[in-house]
Amino acid sequence: MENFIFNAYTKIYFGKGMISNLPEAIKKHGKNVLLVYGGGSIRKNGIYDKTRELLSDCNIIELPGVEPNPKIDTVRKGVELCREHNVEVILAIGGGSTIDCSKVIGAGFYYEGDAWELVEFPDKITEVLPVVTVLTLAATGSEMNKNAVISNPEINEKLGTASSNMIPQASILDPEYLYSLPAIQTAAGTADIMSHVFESYFKQEEDTFIQNKFAEGLLETCIKYCPIALKEPNNYEARANLMWASTLALNGLVGAGKAGAWTCHPMEHELSAFYDITHGTGLAILTPRWMRYILSEKTVDKFVEYGKNVWHLPELEDKFAYANQAIDKTEQFFRDCGIPMSFSEIGIGEEYFDIMAEKAVRIGYLAYAYVPLSKNDVINIFKMCM
Amino acid sequence: MENFIFNAYTKIYFGKGMISNLPEAIKKHGKNVLLVYGGGSIRKNGIYDKTRELLSDCNIIELPGVEPNPKIDTVRKGVELCREHNVEVILAIGGGSTIDCSKVIGAGFYYEGDAWELVEFPDKITEVLPVVTVLTLAATGSEMNKNAVISNPEINEKLGTASSNMIPQASILDPEYLYSLPAIQTAAGTADIMSHVFESYFKQEEDTFIQNKFAEGLLETCIKYCPIALKEPNNYEARANLMWASTLALNGLVGAGKAGAWTCHPMEHELSAFYDITHGTGLAILTPRWMRYILSEKTVDKFVEYGKNVWHLPELEDKFAYANQAIDKTEQFFRDCGIPMSFSEIGIGEEYFDIMAEKAVRIGYLAYAYVPLSKNDVINIFKMCM
Repeated sequence: MENFIFNAYTKIYFGKGMISNLPEAIKKHGKNVLLVYGGGSIRKNGIYDKTRELLSDCNIIELPGVEPNPKIDTVRKGVELCREHNVEVILAIGGGSTIDCSKVIGAGFYYEGDAWELVEFPDKITEVLPVVTVLTLAATGSEMNKNAVISNPEINEKLGTASSNMIPQASILDPEYLYSLPAIQTAAGTADIMSHVFESYFKQEEDTFIQNKFAEGLLETCIKYCPIALKEPNNYEARANLMWASTLALNGLVGAGKAGAWTCHPMEHELSAFYDITHGTGLAILTPRWMRYILSEKTVDKFVEYGKNVWHLPELEDKFAYANQAIDKTEQFFRDCGIPMSFSEIGIGEEYFDIMAEKAVRIGYLAYAYVPLSKNDVINIFKMCM
Repeated sequence: MENFIFNAYTKIYFGKGMISNLPEAIKKHGKNVLLVYGGGSIRKNGIYDKTRELLSDCNIIELPGVEPNPKIDTVRKGVELCREHNVEVILAIGGGSTIDCSKVIGAGFYYEGDAWELVEFPDKITEVLPVVTVLTLAATGSEMNKNAVISNPEINEKLGTASSNMIPQASILDPEYLYSLPAIQTAAGTADIMSHVFESYFKQEEDTFIQNKFAEGLLETCIKYCPIALKEPNNYEARANLMWASTLALNGLVGAGKAGAWTCHPMEHELSAFYDITHGTGLAILTPRWMRYILSEKTVDKFVEYGKNVWHLPELEDKFAYANQAIDKTEQFFRDCGIPMSFSEIGIGEEYFDIMAEKAVRIGYLAYAYVPLSKNDVINIFKMCM
């Protein structure tokens, strides 16, 4: 087990009606609030009105319209608003995009240069305005971690940045807020959760038993509850387990004590940067193809473990056949959840394979992945996704 | 899933040599340090010297000699020292006893009345001096939670108290510090970890899938690694997994979203209060007997789940036979770890069964346990332990 530092200090308020704790969570930081949200669904499902009611004695500045794959221009706008109105705390209501955007706004407030520099060079992040979140999508885990991913469409870049000071101070997780999600967001969100787990589960370390057990438990949770949530959108048990899984999949627990870089995320970020697709969809398409591509004498035992402990497949003598069954199960699961499972279905052609692979290798440190990948490897995996 | 608040904000420094971070963890709170420790093993294994060296520019006041089952008098002494020397931060080096004692010292510093009142009435705890820990025993989870258990021998009381302000600010977990533990402490510590998991695993809720998977993973970790650590005390992988398991078993993760009170701990606290035995030993003796006592048509399915997911027992048609096998396995596991598995072996007779049962019922809220227990039930379970 590698040495690690773990510090997921976010105060989680989990459950029905827990938004009643919002005034406590916000006002300990101040009453000048930047309210950040996305496309307006929170106006339909009542969260917006509830928030304004609960914070009626606060001075609320609004930044609506945060995009999926949030753009650096939106961050810049948020930083300006914070400075103009002496904002003391940022309230992000939404999914990962809104929360990520809010984190970098919070960092940008204290930074004299352009906010994009904080994305390119995470070390430049120092102080960060406190961020409080109300989660409306189970996917990125941003509600309890230090990460943010921001896009810069002018240069087709989508980059992750991180700082322990960007961890939200508090997050309100009410599973009922997931009831009204479109099915594809439930499915793609689940693919994102699972991908976060895979990125840490498939690593070289063999002595991280606890982390692996937690990883398997989270994968089983997604496999059990995503189909239920799709069939019965108002099933509280399913929504609660998925929501808590999203948080635990990327708050540092599963990756603690493991070295090495991620694989599918850096590849997917290029797809999103060039085509602005849904992140979870890109991950679902890439994941089983990547698994098949790296399956070898060296990795097969790990895939057998995966098939046994996550899919509970009956024993087979041929371990490659067994591993392939586990990978097939993974692909079929995403397909059954209604995710389009090829590039062609979501409008991605081969035209940028070369430049996307080039950038994925450069930015994603794929040379340090579970199985190191070259630019050519990435192109081959992209081709398998057509 | 019940609503819950989760806030395990301790910064964990995990791994070999991570004590190098001690100056950073301590000095952010101040340089006047109360150093709390136990029987002096830290002088033999080098941790004491290393600490003094790392904090050579701090003003260190010492409170050595904290007992297993820490006494309220030691807390009182600590409070006095803190006031006398304007202590700003408490450094606890040891296991749960030392850490628990330090937490209540930290709370007592801000309390005008007698510290025992903070144990009897947790609501009286307000501010708490920051506590930093260096863990030397994998057992109680106190390094990342709000709990403390303090004994008052004058009145044969051993009570738990809690406050979210008592959560340690930082904890240093170096698995190598476990190498020199006596075998019985490794074994009894593991029994304590497992008991923390059992207390939450055996609950009425059926919709806490994630929590149950994490619980099973932690139990499997203990079952896998305790025998290895006993055979090879310097096995890093075993020590690391046990150490991290101790923290995760009681930092709120496994119990999140579950209602109801604990069972074996309140019973054991009476044993420790009357006989000053090792907490984990008492738990190991009680646990399988308690399991057998509550096995019924209503609970059998949960025990089958336990046998299947934790012990991986081969299928059996008779579910009671299957459940009993799982319980037998549990008892045999503790026995194989070298824990004395009956009251008579550790000098406990029947003389106080009545009063201990009376107090366990009164204090432990056993009426709200997984299977509610009356005073008579507790006496019956005690008798099974002879």
